Amino acid sequence: MYKLILVRHGESVWNKENLFTGWTDVDLSETGKAEAKAAGEGLKTLNLNIDVCFTSYLKRAIHTLNIILDEMDRAYLPVYKAWQLNERHYGALQGLNKAETAAKYGEDQVKLWRRSYDVKPPALEEEDKRNPAKQDAYKNVAKENLPLTESLETTVERVVPYFHEAILPELQKGKTVLVAAHGNSLRALIMYLEHMSKEEVIGLNLPTGVPLIYDLNEDLSIANKQYVGDQEAIKAKMNAVANQGKAK
Amino acid sequence: MYKLILVRHGESVWNKENLFTGWTDVDLSETGKAEAKAAGEGLKTLNLNIDVCFTSYLKRAIHTLNIILDEMDRAYLPVYKAWQLNERHYGALQGLNKAETAAKYGEDQVKLWRRSYDVKPPALEEEDKRNPAKQDAYKNVAKENLPLTESLETTVERVVPYFHEAILPELQKGKTVLVAAHGNSLRALIMYLEHMSKEEVIGLNLPTGVPLIYDLNEDLSIANKQYVGDQEAIKAKMNAVANQGKAK
Repeated sequence: MYKLILVRHGESVWNKENLFTGWTDVDLSETGKAEAKAAGEGLKTLNLNIDVCFTSYLKRAIHTLNIILDEMDRAYLPVYKAWQLNERHYGALQGLNKAETAAKYGEDQVKLWRRSYDVKPPALEEEDKRNPAKQDAYKNVAKENLPLTESLETTVERVVPYFHEAILPELQKGKTVLVAAHGNSLRALIMYLEHMSKEEVIGLNLPTGVPLIYDLNEDLSIANKQYVGDQEAIKAKMNAVANQGKAK
Repeated sequence: MYKLILVRHGESVWNKENLFTGWTDVDLSETGKAEAKAAGEGLKTLNLNIDVCFTSYLKRAIHTLNIILDEMDRAYLPVYKAWQLNERHYGALQGLNKAETAAKYGEDQVKLWRRSYDVKPPALEEEDKRNPAKQDAYKNVAKENLPLTESLETTVERVVPYFHEAILPELQKGKTVLVAAHGNSLRALIMYLEHMSKEEVIGLNLPTGVPLIYDLNEDLSIANKQYVGDQEAIKAKMNAVANQGKAK
């Protein structure tokens, strides 16, 4: 039996300001830090003996993981950072206000970019300084792998191979694995694990800062699935995320 | 030319309380956090393009590194955590007050434990819960490698092999390496790099939170050596550490 724990980072300073974030490297807000702390407390209570951790290159996920590890008093655990676990790249929309974008392109268009499976937002220009290929953080990544924009579909195409290449081997060694990442990189992974259709994954709303524990059989079929924490509060949190989508 | 940067963690809460620490996993004090922040600011100014980081299993070193990475806006860098970079194990003295220990064993004996090269403090009993072999953090380390007490000599015997096995290969790949560790694990490494005698290393006082940059030739001979920051302030800090030893 494999044990895989997923946690989505808490609120970032740009969530708060209603900006498209994507690969922009913004930090957690104070609320986000408190969410991470609560996630760590929840995991500590369960005595899970986590062996190894994965996170993205983005500090809102890295800091979420660091806070969780401190809360569990396990700062010594190995942590692998992977660009493949980054949030979906939001192209030229990154840094724009969501309401202003709706005014400019129309609400329907924005809804399509946000909630469709395979539609990509407008791409960054090559020479844009937001192009990951121009950033220090990605200097060791082959340029052809770095996106200028992404759909959820193309996010799946980098997350799932990374799961097989780096995460699954740890599970197969009997390690309990914690992944601290983002709404869309985790949706990509969950879609794969739960064999969801494109329609189903669009309806999936992962609450922030709530660890999700999978017990997986060796063929990766799901033996058990459990959110960590007060189940009613979690349900309310998931509805809030769903309504955020509708409100736009 | 290889670039290797060493930084000793800042003040811990037990430094402050004058307790023997060793492998006890105590956190940085507020002063220690400020020292780490200053180290990060200093490194940021120099634009060093650090590629990979190493630290110990102990949170005062891990947190020093995390604070430095945040200050440089490089939280995404790979970090390897190694028990081999831990502080010297202080045996049964861990957790004891330094003044009380001097009263019990005599000042000369305590001086010998603290400042000699090859004298070990009294060992922990096997069944002591402070025995690393009984702690979760070290469950993947072969028991015969885990100490019950250490001298600086036996610290050298784990630090130097780890340098060759894990750190040197990164330097040889052309990577700039940052090591955030402890007074004695870094003295062990510096003794090796600078071909110091046992007497010389005893006189070496590494200031806390001050990055030390080595430019090494391929044969590991030293091309240049530089402390990062205000040189007069650093000299004062090194004298303070030296006098701390004498004051006992």
